[in-house]
Amino acid sequence: MWIFRSVFLFSDLLSFCCCFFFLQKSVVDGVLPSFRSVCGEDGVSLSEAIREQHGKDESVHKCCPPDVVVFPRSVDEVSALAKICHMHCLPIIPFGTGTGLEGGVGAMKGGVCFSLRNMDQVLDLHVEDFDVTVEPGVTRKALNSYLRDTGLWFPVDPGADASLCGMAATSASGTNAVRYGTMRENIMNLEVVLADGTIINTAGKGRRPRKTSAGYNLTNLFVGSEGTLGIITKTTLRLYGIPEAVVSAVCSFPSVQAAVDSTVQILQSGVPIARIEFLDDVMIDACNRFSSLSYPVTPTLFLEFHGSERSLEEQVNTSEITQCNGGSDFQWAKDEETRSRLWKARHDAWYAALALRPGCKAYATDVCVPLSMLPQIIVETKEDLIANKLTGPIAGHVGDGNFHCLMVLDPNDPDELQRVHLFTERLARRALAMSGTCTGEHGVGLGKRALLVEEMGAQAIQVMQSLKETLDPKNLMNPGKVLQ
Amino acid sequence: MWIFRSVFLFSDLLSFCCCFFFLQKSVVDGVLPSFRSVCGEDGVSLSEAIREQHGKDESVHKCCPPDVVVFPRSVDEVSALAKICHMHCLPIIPFGTGTGLEGGVGAMKGGVCFSLRNMDQVLDLHVEDFDVTVEPGVTRKALNSYLRDTGLWFPVDPGADASLCGMAATSASGTNAVRYGTMRENIMNLEVVLADGTIINTAGKGRRPRKTSAGYNLTNLFVGSEGTLGIITKTTLRLYGIPEAVVSAVCSFPSVQAAVDSTVQILQSGVPIARIEFLDDVMIDACNRFSSLSYPVTPTLFLEFHGSERSLEEQVNTSEITQCNGGSDFQWAKDEETRSRLWKARHDAWYAALALRPGCKAYATDVCVPLSMLPQIIVETKEDLIANKLTGPIAGHVGDGNFHCLMVLDPNDPDELQRVHLFTERLARRALAMSGTCTGEHGVGLGKRALLVEEMGAQAIQVMQSLKETLDPKNLMNPGKVLQ
Repeated sequence: MWIFRSVFLFSDLLSFCCCFFFLQKSVVDGVLPSFRSVCGEDGVSLSEAIREQHGKDESVHKCCPPDVVVFPRSVDEVSALAKICHMHCLPIIPFGTGTGLEGGVGAMKGGVCFSLRNMDQVLDLHVEDFDVTVEPGVTRKALNSYLRDTGLWFPVDPGADASLCGMAATSASGTNAVRYGTMRENIMNLEVVLADGTIINTAGKGRRPRKTSAGYNLTNLFVGSEGTLGIITKTTLRLYGIPEAVVSAVCSFPSVQAAVDSTVQILQSGVPIARIEFLDDVMIDACNRFSSLSYPVTPTLFLEFHGSERSLEEQVNTSEITQCNGGSDFQWAKDEETRSRLWKARHDAWYAALALRPGCKAYATDVCVPLSMLPQIIVETKEDLIANKLTGPIAGHVGDGNFHCLMVLDPNDPDELQRVHLFTERLARRALAMSGTCTGEHGVGLGKRALLVEEMGAQAIQVMQSLKETLDPKNLMNPGKVLQ
Repeated sequence: MWIFRSVFLFSDLLSFCCCFFFLQKSVVDGVLPSFRSVCGEDGVSLSEAIREQHGKDESVHKCCPPDVVVFPRSVDEVSALAKICHMHCLPIIPFGTGTGLEGGVGAMKGGVCFSLRNMDQVLDLHVEDFDVTVEPGVTRKALNSYLRDTGLWFPVDPGADASLCGMAATSASGTNAVRYGTMRENIMNLEVVLADGTIINTAGKGRRPRKTSAGYNLTNLFVGSEGTLGIITKTTLRLYGIPEAVVSAVCSFPSVQAAVDSTVQILQSGVPIARIEFLDDVMIDACNRFSSLSYPVTPTLFLEFHGSERSLEEQVNTSEITQCNGGSDFQWAKDEETRSRLWKARHDAWYAALALRPGCKAYATDVCVPLSMLPQIIVETKEDLIANKLTGPIAGHVGDGNFHCLMVLDPNDPDELQRVHLFTERLARRALAMSGTCTGEHGVGLGKRALLVEEMGAQAIQVMQSLKETLDPKNLMNPGKVLQ
């Protein structure tokens, strides 16, 4: 979709864009001294390599480099730079680690990339209150390393070592969400720089009550706004006690239905399961090859239980449920090394999929449906993949009803591109027809803007559009993303 | 504060208001036939008793009756009525059960109260998916009765038998929030009628994925907006499995510090406690008298554990923690009847407080602070109450850092009113100085609008104001609430 849309629009827009970019380029040249006066010579880069690096994420969306990359060191510098951009109508694109999957960092209209990597301090850790505030350069792994000796951790884990403010911006989640929630549920406060340089704190400066009903929920308006409403310069996060004991297990099933039925029954039983991940036969085969494993090549669940030693004994009775559904005996991963190997294999699913077809690229679909719809949508989707000769191993956070087809495709084969494009649209519409969403955790970015309209309906989109126009009337914040 | 503010403004506004209300009254008279054509003769009431009943909630804010009360039976009727109000610039005040505590339903500028009690259907229960959609007349008790045979329940419990859409509008929570979250975390979708009659679904019509990152989070923009952005006409809620076993317990402590230290340590230990409620010595004394109990008159925790029979055995080891802090042996409430009696006593705290001074009225403060700040703020607040000769027993959801002083006051004693007013402002500012909020779960309503500005800062308030102006440019939706 992302590629075809560009082609369709390209001829119409070419002459306008050339003119626009030429004009904007000269504006950028004119403001460089101002940028340098804010964040120093080293804080402003026009290097082609740096710009290219900041014009793309991990998706197949083509690189759209910004005109310039700035590296602010504080919120005041972010604000000062934003004011300059605002005055000169230059687009602003916030950049964390570039690990997004929906083309969210491409500079579709050129402009200024704000790389936030130099703001990398962990601030205000409150161990007794289970909260911490971090700057946007802090990644989830860096935070958890920092927390190691405190007995606390931050559980939201999208796989990639993304920045926490970037995860806030895309409403990320991942394997632990079934127990600990997504970024939406785990952010207590944000510091945000608006398009005109105004600095706000969404729950009031320095505030960190565990709950509040004070005014409109600005925090969750910015969570998931993908840089289109403001630049997140601080986030205050909920932390959790590191569980006394952790056990992981792998269980193979005769069918998708059996694996998903087990998932629903485990959740219904009230077991506070921490992770419950589905891999279809193609995915487990790819993981076996890539990570030198030897799991049976059938639909599989990777599970993880967190708790005290004693509560784990009970949780692992979950195996009675899986056995009733024809599941294999659990293969346990009890010590940390074995568990790490297991979850590394799961997190490496992306690379395992890519390795199925060397030289190809990958694109992850991201639909999410009510649990009861999962067997049907996964079975239909697998039939669709086979009928259209597409490689798309399936991995999913089935406890949330969210799964990904990791589409491996040859970007130089237009016929395959077209088949993938049509497949992803069919899959999204299948999810929409089942009361679901086209994106459970990756966001809308560039490629799902049209689907978002189908999903939300014209009136809700109009409300979103009016919110965008209110907060960013010049359409400078990450233009061309989320909304059309 | 609420009373004094009215007095200060009264002389300035009297002549303007008389003129305004006179004009508005004639407009209302003019549109009555249109209202009746939408929702029938029975669906429109000008009765003084009905208007009085819809002009106040359970707070001490004075009754401000609307000009007319309408009783729509469907979202289409709500939309049609809203369009009429919009065309004639008539204020719209949504009304659920009137159990709010911050004066949220008063018709400050007259106008039309939308009583939603006739829309009382439970719709679209999906047992396998743990979700249900309800109309705005459905209360939390009615829903849980409806669910009784399904093995599921909805846990958010603010005490009163409030309507679920009203609870969404005020971002309610209550005793179970420490484990199950507040309304913010438990709403998957809302149907909302905007000021101009437009109907939107905040997550798209009929959608109910367990997570989503599709566009801006409109759902949580309307949750807690207190009727100032739109009328909630449906809410889709997360449900939970009824726990296999439930045990409650009461534990007495030698000091506030000991009770709160126990709370923090229980949470740190990872015990998935369902309720952990604090009552100070004055509150427990009042409860003893009102509910014929005989607990020691010292700081006390009411606790509840949910889980399987076996996991409960472990959870109740929590008593080791409380004993280390000087707590008494647990007094158990294991059978349903004993537990119900215990929690009824907790929910009746409001009436127990009122019974301390017959003929008086009650007002509940609602600050929420980080857990580590609780002992200090409670101790300082108790000293303040004593120094100012005020009756204000304390009950709190200490697992969330949220507590209430149930201020019992004689509304005919201006000196006491003034002392209560000054006390509540000092308490709120004490919470703000400790990184907390002036309202953990009751909302802003009428009385905390000035405090909200202190809490959020001018810039964030400006953003809230601009969102309000965008969604309700004529300021018709519940005017005079939340924002000044």
